[in-house]
Amino acid sequence: MSSGRFEIRMLAKRGDARGSLVVAEAGRECPFPVARVYWVFGTQAGVRRGFHAHHRTRQMAVCVSGACTFLMDDGAHREELRMDSPDSALMIEPGVWHEMSDFTPDCVLLVLADAPYAESDYIRDYAEFKKLVSQ
Amino acid sequence: MSSGRFEIRMLAKRGDARGSLVVAEAGRECPFPVARVYWVFGTQAGVRRGFHAHHRTRQMAVCVSGACTFLMDDGAHREELRMDSPDSALMIEPGVWHEMSDFTPDCVLLVLADAPYAESDYIRDYAEFKKLVSQ
Repeated sequence: MSSGRFEIRMLAKRGDARGSLVVAEAGRECPFPVARVYWVFGTQAGVRRGFHAHHRTRQMAVCVSGACTFLMDDGAHREELRMDSPDSALMIEPGVWHEMSDFTPDCVLLVLADAPYAESDYIRDYAEFKKLVSQ
Repeated sequence: MSSGRFEIRMLAKRGDARGSLVVAEAGRECPFPVARVYWVFGTQAGVRRGFHAHHRTRQMAVCVSGACTFLMDDGAHREELRMDSPDSALMIEPGVWHEMSDFTPDCVLLVLADAPYAESDYIRDYAEFKKLVSQ
């Protein structure tokens, strides 16, 4: 499914007959300090989100419920990845244009980020993104 | 529903026709640095989890999908709180015995913690807990 160009980290699922638990500790399963956590939910059918890259922010994304599809684009390669498991984490490194689509109604997309929100860190114009990554 | 003894923080739900997003930034919506994030899911019907307090770890818990009930006990007062909204966060401060039950099948309980996992930080014996908080 994945070319390996965009890293998917398998997280340990600890569980027993009672249920399951997945942990992301900063500096371990999550390779960066966690400055911000957000969750996206209730996404309507047919919606595409994202449409940006970051200058510096690193992120790790997990569908903790349901599924959605990431289009990842580093300027040289584009790839679609279906994220549908609460123990697989997609690394979204700086300089990767990403779009999310095909959210299931129950999808909860959890994202850990290494920096507080800053609009100046967003590249929202695809032409500008292509120019930046080709430099 | 809540006596106010155990803090529930209402987080801003940002959204539009496309869907919703809730953010917890360390030092803002989440009052502590985030050292660890974990999510509990697939909890079987009838299961109770938790049954411990922490010496020092601070935690913030959100049902990002579904619902569950927290029994919170600071040694002097016990209270049950139904957590059923992705924009309300229960603060679990040190020295609070907590048990979780009545998980809905779709429940995903997200927890942010200010410290890495350390078994030595757990108080797993209720009698010991009562003794510690009465000192």
